[in-house]
Amino acid sequence: MIPKADRLQHVKEYYFSRKLREVRQLKAAGKPVINIGIGSPDLDPPLSVSRAMKNALEQNHIHGYQSYQGLPELRNAIAAFYLQHYYVKADPDKGILPLMGSKEGIMHISMAFLNAGDKVLIPNPGYPTYASVTNLVQAKPVMYDLVEDNNWFPDLVALAKTDLSKVKLMWVSYPHMPTGSKPTKELFEQLVAFGRKHQILIINDNPYSFILNDTPMSILSVPGSKDVALELNSLSKTFNMAGWRVGMVLGSAQNIQSILEVKSNMDSGMFYGIQQGAIAALNSDENWFKNLNSTYIDRKKVAWQIADILGCTYDKNSAGLFIWAKLPEGKKAEQMADELLYKYDVFLTPGTIFGSNGEGYIRISLCVKESILSEVLQRLLLTNQ
Amino acid sequence: MIPKADRLQHVKEYYFSRKLREVRQLKAAGKPVINIGIGSPDLDPPLSVSRAMKNALEQNHIHGYQSYQGLPELRNAIAAFYLQHYYVKADPDKGILPLMGSKEGIMHISMAFLNAGDKVLIPNPGYPTYASVTNLVQAKPVMYDLVEDNNWFPDLVALAKTDLSKVKLMWVSYPHMPTGSKPTKELFEQLVAFGRKHQILIINDNPYSFILNDTPMSILSVPGSKDVALELNSLSKTFNMAGWRVGMVLGSAQNIQSILEVKSNMDSGMFYGIQQGAIAALNSDENWFKNLNSTYIDRKKVAWQIADILGCTYDKNSAGLFIWAKLPEGKKAEQMADELLYKYDVFLTPGTIFGSNGEGYIRISLCVKESILSEVLQRLLLTNQ
Repeated sequence: MIPKADRLQHVKEYYFSRKLREVRQLKAAGKPVINIGIGSPDLDPPLSVSRAMKNALEQNHIHGYQSYQGLPELRNAIAAFYLQHYYVKADPDKGILPLMGSKEGIMHISMAFLNAGDKVLIPNPGYPTYASVTNLVQAKPVMYDLVEDNNWFPDLVALAKTDLSKVKLMWVSYPHMPTGSKPTKELFEQLVAFGRKHQILIINDNPYSFILNDTPMSILSVPGSKDVALELNSLSKTFNMAGWRVGMVLGSAQNIQSILEVKSNMDSGMFYGIQQGAIAALNSDENWFKNLNSTYIDRKKVAWQIADILGCTYDKNSAGLFIWAKLPEGKKAEQMADELLYKYDVFLTPGTIFGSNGEGYIRISLCVKESILSEVLQRLLLTNQ
Repeated sequence: MIPKADRLQHVKEYYFSRKLREVRQLKAAGKPVINIGIGSPDLDPPLSVSRAMKNALEQNHIHGYQSYQGLPELRNAIAAFYLQHYYVKADPDKGILPLMGSKEGIMHISMAFLNAGDKVLIPNPGYPTYASVTNLVQAKPVMYDLVEDNNWFPDLVALAKTDLSKVKLMWVSYPHMPTGSKPTKELFEQLVAFGRKHQILIINDNPYSFILNDTPMSILSVPGSKDVALELNSLSKTFNMAGWRVGMVLGSAQNIQSILEVKSNMDSGMFYGIQQGAIAALNSDENWFKNLNSTYIDRKKVAWQIADILGCTYDKNSAGLFIWAKLPEGKKAEQMADELLYKYDVFLTPGTIFGSNGEGYIRISLCVKESILSEVLQRLLLTNQ
């Protein structure tokens, strides 16, 4: 037996994967489990997306390898999208790299900039993949605290007092997952200044900016940010294309080139038809965003009622696909999740899977039809009467 | 400026990328350059493939995240394909992992089994990505010689006399790229025995077995091989789907699990429509392979004439998408490639890009219409008269 690499010793089975297996078993045993835990959009992409794929399939010579950098038309569409929605100018030739989902970008960036033993600042709570990829490349995750009292923003003054000498990267994600906290211009300015002062590359992972948010913002809108910041973005949530695997990274020509050196050794370009679908999505007009959000607003209202019944508090102004709800004093997150699962056949996400600062919180997904959220509400109301 | 990681210090610009830029410049300057260098199939996939994608797009709920392990139907189709064509039984649940192209598998496997400083046996000549990925994970490539006199098979007796204590992986690819050398049952048996004896994981990269080859073989057909061997395979060449990015890795449940631990932290599952296209391709009947190869046989005959005019010798029995031709005594590969490019406006691949043992050889691609190969022939004939 050939032993696996040391880097896998930190990799544990994902909480979701374990819990979803339990959910499947409960379902198989006849339990009517409703899953309001996961964040895969259930709505369809713009109609133009599938149409673009179908049109592509009618063309000749579309089945061969594609460029690592993607079609120039796709990079141009990304540049136009960033200009229109974020007021950010990006060079489509050297400042934009399409990815097969932004998730692969987390690995590419980590491979491009981290040596074994380097340190990486990672939000607690935050997306668990930042830490697991950091471990995979044998760098060291250094968790930084986000707390509700500070609007889930990092305390950069406190961070600057710690030993940052080995820190090479800092992951941020605003609008923040899981809390839905929206960025401010000042936050992005402070992050860029922090990165410049301490020679830390700041990466803003920005897939949620068009969900329940009237003012999409990019960290790259800060003047001079490109030397010290990268931005990851994705079509998964904005256009309901999670399965299509289309993301992007934007930054300085030099940083994008380093990422491309990794990427070109790891995979190939995206399927032509997928790129055409992506271009069609990026060209969507304002109605797309309006309609999308009107659905999420309706769902959010029911999700709030669910949170109310559970005695939670929450920020009505949050962005993104989730309600991040604070449990009544003394309630533990996983205890509440188990209680809901076993008593009401409702699966939702305990805040602790996003880090220790998620203790005392639960996350309710808006990727669930309003009628199903209402069914959850009914179950809770009936039993609580 | 944040410096890039040490692992990128070994990454050089790919010869192809540099040379193709030159080709583009020559074309832009009006030169009628014909490219018979690259191996991206120009032919179309089976009609059923695009049809399956279009049908998928008519279904509901196909746009969300897919499982890391792919659809059960895809794994079943891969299992059936391996049984039908290679007489290999594989467990669709635990012994098969669909990949976004077999290229990403090279990285996943390297991440799953290599620690920094481990050694990896890599064929010279061979596919350059094995060495570049090995460098990226900071393991050490140890090139092993393949020579024509030994049918481009490794000399395992000689290898066993070297210090193998730090060697964890050995890459082989039969049918071999670039030489087209076909495997034998004995070769695979010897490789498996070598792997078992020295505790080295043998990976056969097997994308060419259906091209100009009547007897597709898998290393996993050797009894007991799964403990010490993995096989990568791909739809790119077999079904002309290079751009679709569909590959697979097969092996023991334990090894597949280790690879899955890496993959699930790096990317997500394949787009549903792509998986449906892959299933349709894998279900192709015998006529597909017959028709495909009849086209390549026609092209091969013209490619042989090109090699003849250049004074080359070659193996008429080779498999795969290329003619691997030995230059006349004393001719250097890159010198010949440049001569053809500047004198005849013909770009082909010097053997040296596959390693030092490729010196004195050139590679002619069969991914070019017969009429275009004939045009190359005409240019050489006219000028040589």
